[in-house]
Amino acid sequence: MADSPNCDLKFLSPLQLFERVTEQGEKVRALKAGKAPKDEIDAAVRMLLSLKLSYKTTTGQDYQAGLPPKDLVLINNGTTKEEDEDLVDPWNVQTSNAKGVDYDKLIVRFGSSKIDTDLINRIERATGQKPHHFLRRGIFFSHRDMDQVLDAYENKKPFYLYTGRGPSSQAMHVGHLIPFLFTKWLQEVFDVPLVIQLTDDEKYLWKDMTIEKAYEYARENAKDIIACGFDINKTFIFSDLDYLGTSAGFYKNIVRVQKHVTFNQVKGIFGFTDSDCIGKISFPAIQAAPSFSSSFPQIFNGKENIQCLIPCAIDQDPYFRMTRDVAPRIGQPKPALLHSVFFPALQGAQTKMSASDPNSSIFLTDTPKQIKTKINKHAFSGGRDTIEEHRKYGGNCDVDVSFMYLTFFLEDDDRLEQLKQAYTSGELLTGELKKVLIETMQPLVAAHQERRKQVTDEIVKQFMTPRKLAFEF
Amino acid sequence: MADSPNCDLKFLSPLQLFERVTEQGEKVRALKAGKAPKDEIDAAVRMLLSLKLSYKTTTGQDYQAGLPPKDLVLINNGTTKEEDEDLVDPWNVQTSNAKGVDYDKLIVRFGSSKIDTDLINRIERATGQKPHHFLRRGIFFSHRDMDQVLDAYENKKPFYLYTGRGPSSQAMHVGHLIPFLFTKWLQEVFDVPLVIQLTDDEKYLWKDMTIEKAYEYARENAKDIIACGFDINKTFIFSDLDYLGTSAGFYKNIVRVQKHVTFNQVKGIFGFTDSDCIGKISFPAIQAAPSFSSSFPQIFNGKENIQCLIPCAIDQDPYFRMTRDVAPRIGQPKPALLHSVFFPALQGAQTKMSASDPNSSIFLTDTPKQIKTKINKHAFSGGRDTIEEHRKYGGNCDVDVSFMYLTFFLEDDDRLEQLKQAYTSGELLTGELKKVLIETMQPLVAAHQERRKQVTDEIVKQFMTPRKLAFEF
Repeated sequence: MADSPNCDLKFLSPLQLFERVTEQGEKVRALKAGKAPKDEIDAAVRMLLSLKLSYKTTTGQDYQAGLPPKDLVLINNGTTKEEDEDLVDPWNVQTSNAKGVDYDKLIVRFGSSKIDTDLINRIERATGQKPHHFLRRGIFFSHRDMDQVLDAYENKKPFYLYTGRGPSSQAMHVGHLIPFLFTKWLQEVFDVPLVIQLTDDEKYLWKDMTIEKAYEYARENAKDIIACGFDINKTFIFSDLDYLGTSAGFYKNIVRVQKHVTFNQVKGIFGFTDSDCIGKISFPAIQAAPSFSSSFPQIFNGKENIQCLIPCAIDQDPYFRMTRDVAPRIGQPKPALLHSVFFPALQGAQTKMSASDPNSSIFLTDTPKQIKTKINKHAFSGGRDTIEEHRKYGGNCDVDVSFMYLTFFLEDDDRLEQLKQAYTSGELLTGELKKVLIETMQPLVAAHQERRKQVTDEIVKQFMTPRKLAFEF
Repeated sequence: MADSPNCDLKFLSPLQLFERVTEQGEKVRALKAGKAPKDEIDAAVRMLLSLKLSYKTTTGQDYQAGLPPKDLVLINNGTTKEEDEDLVDPWNVQTSNAKGVDYDKLIVRFGSSKIDTDLINRIERATGQKPHHFLRRGIFFSHRDMDQVLDAYENKKPFYLYTGRGPSSQAMHVGHLIPFLFTKWLQEVFDVPLVIQLTDDEKYLWKDMTIEKAYEYARENAKDIIACGFDINKTFIFSDLDYLGTSAGFYKNIVRVQKHVTFNQVKGIFGFTDSDCIGKISFPAIQAAPSFSSSFPQIFNGKENIQCLIPCAIDQDPYFRMTRDVAPRIGQPKPALLHSVFFPALQGAQTKMSASDPNSSIFLTDTPKQIKTKINKHAFSGGRDTIEEHRKYGGNCDVDVSFMYLTFFLEDDDRLEQLKQAYTSGELLTGELKKVLIETMQPLVAAHQERRKQVTDEIVKQFMTPRKLAFEF
């Protein structure tokens, strides 16, 4: 075994491999110190190199002395996850828990900070506004450097908001609205400019879709986004395919990021392989670049180094961990982040919703009747099997999807608390809870549709035209 | 050994590994056919996978049944070169032969076609012009699909020219002019539009250089290129850093190419590793995209699928082999190519010249005195050690750098032939041959400097402005 380092190495864990490399390194040093015969040293060095290669093949990272692979978990998005851990990356969210992903664990694994009561109170003091219910209810639960954004804001230093969407189809569901609804609130209470990236290039690269189709979806999605009520004078929405060819600053920042990120790094962060196309491999730089204000010279009048704050679902965090790692090396401020939980599928919180399964959620195009049918038929219930049992033991709000949806969309805190108590005690039946959800969602979706109708092509064009935004820095 | 497939596999050649994978595959099939016990089959499959991984690690390519790794040499640029082969890729040119790279071998290895007398005669018939001395003397020696370009041209179908330069410094040497001088001739005799790419983004990615510096070099180099005498009404010169942000079509073609090329492929073609930055890895798409006319909607009035012809040094061929591979898959015509030999360093033809070594060539900024000193001091001579020996045995034009330079720059065929005869016979001494070269290069460089002085910033701006070129399609 000792003479055939590659044998069965593939059955070793990353940690075992790490220990083998470390041992072998010590052996080489000892041989050299003891002035052993050259061929003996050479053989030991060959074995060391071979072990390092195996380590790299297994972990996707170069061996670094003193840095055992346990640390990988912190910088990795979960591809080397431990048993029982949730899988969370920009393309997958998987958990075996009906309550959904364990977000406290995710904060530790991603190395972000919890949005606690102190921070929420501070946002309230800074803005003079009651915190959004997404903050009060822990829907935006994690952050990076939000305290620094508030420090700066309190000292009258400007910042801007950046969020985005991958336009994979015309159909957006209510879950897609979460980051936009929250971003709209942030724009209002902080009175700051906002850029919204539509990654149509990403969708072209990842899906079986033409460039023209991806761009069409971007424009269609822009209508739904605009219908959330963004301020046309303070919001710039852009398609990558379009904007890259019209901006003097965007490509320069992309290539700056691309110079400072290796394939090893994106392999570690995003799980890319050698069979992936070079477009996917370099794409993370395109999602990173809007974090730097110099990507938008027309908006900020050429002013650089303006702090960026990114509200997004936690699955997008790997892109911005990478961005924050690169930022100081290209002389730019690190973007701050506010992370939301995932919006659960009607069928249960084990997975993120899919835009390709019409029954997995309520879509922005659904009729009142479709909404009613979907909720009644598909919304996973935390109620008991029989009315008698339910009355006796009560329902479980932690796994009940109707209750979860109400947490997102029912703004009245008192009413929500009443529903929770009544359901948990067994007083409120599943059908009754579903009825509340139906009555909440129907007018909400209808109102969205009404606003979307008002969004003309001309309005879309205005939002998507690079221009100076109504803001003085 | 048979039970430990990974042992010492790294000492096997690609072909030996290929045979091991093939054998193991047959063994697995035999076990399955013979309904062997499951764990026996599983063990054999594990070993097969392990062997395939070793094959991939060694060759950078997936194992493909029936396709032994010998074929790699044809699609590879030399990173898996055989003994005695010249190394030729966009960053390295190495040969152990004083005559320079063996170009006939290179044609076979790259799979291109030799520019023979028939093709040269056909170019003469098509254009009604005497072929350029670079063609007559084999300086442009290899091509891809030039016959198709001529077929189309004879049928009044349009094409355009594309060439380029990586602006690694302000200083260009006379060797850098070769593709431009030839391209200028092609533009004149065929009367076609021309695009010239300055890959300042590439230089930023590869060198320790800021974006601003790379762009500055691009503009400086543009002046030397313009001084070659290109038609301002038919020539568009662009910096990637600049043009990417102003073109509606360029980025779309880049992302199309990026979708159809994998990391495995660029690893095989360019020798990239996992430690390379993602900018380098995706850069080949940026050099590929100008091969498609839709990258220049303003030039061609939005007309697509216009045939492209690329004159370049043979070391750039890997980019365009990749481009030609992708073209049909994105619905575009394959670019045709004309390849030149390398321009030798003053010190000898073993290496390509380096812009960073001022003594390695004659620079476009050199004074008459510098030219004289450099040639006398550094030009490698094919003459004999003593005058007596030289008179008796004659000089060797095949390795004499002064004679090689005259082949590039002395247009008079008869004079060149006389010099060759006189030098080979020993009648002409090394010092006399060098004198001819000095007298050829001094006025040539002085005239270039004079023309360059006329190139104002305004003229550079005109050349670099995206616009419709004076050509009707």
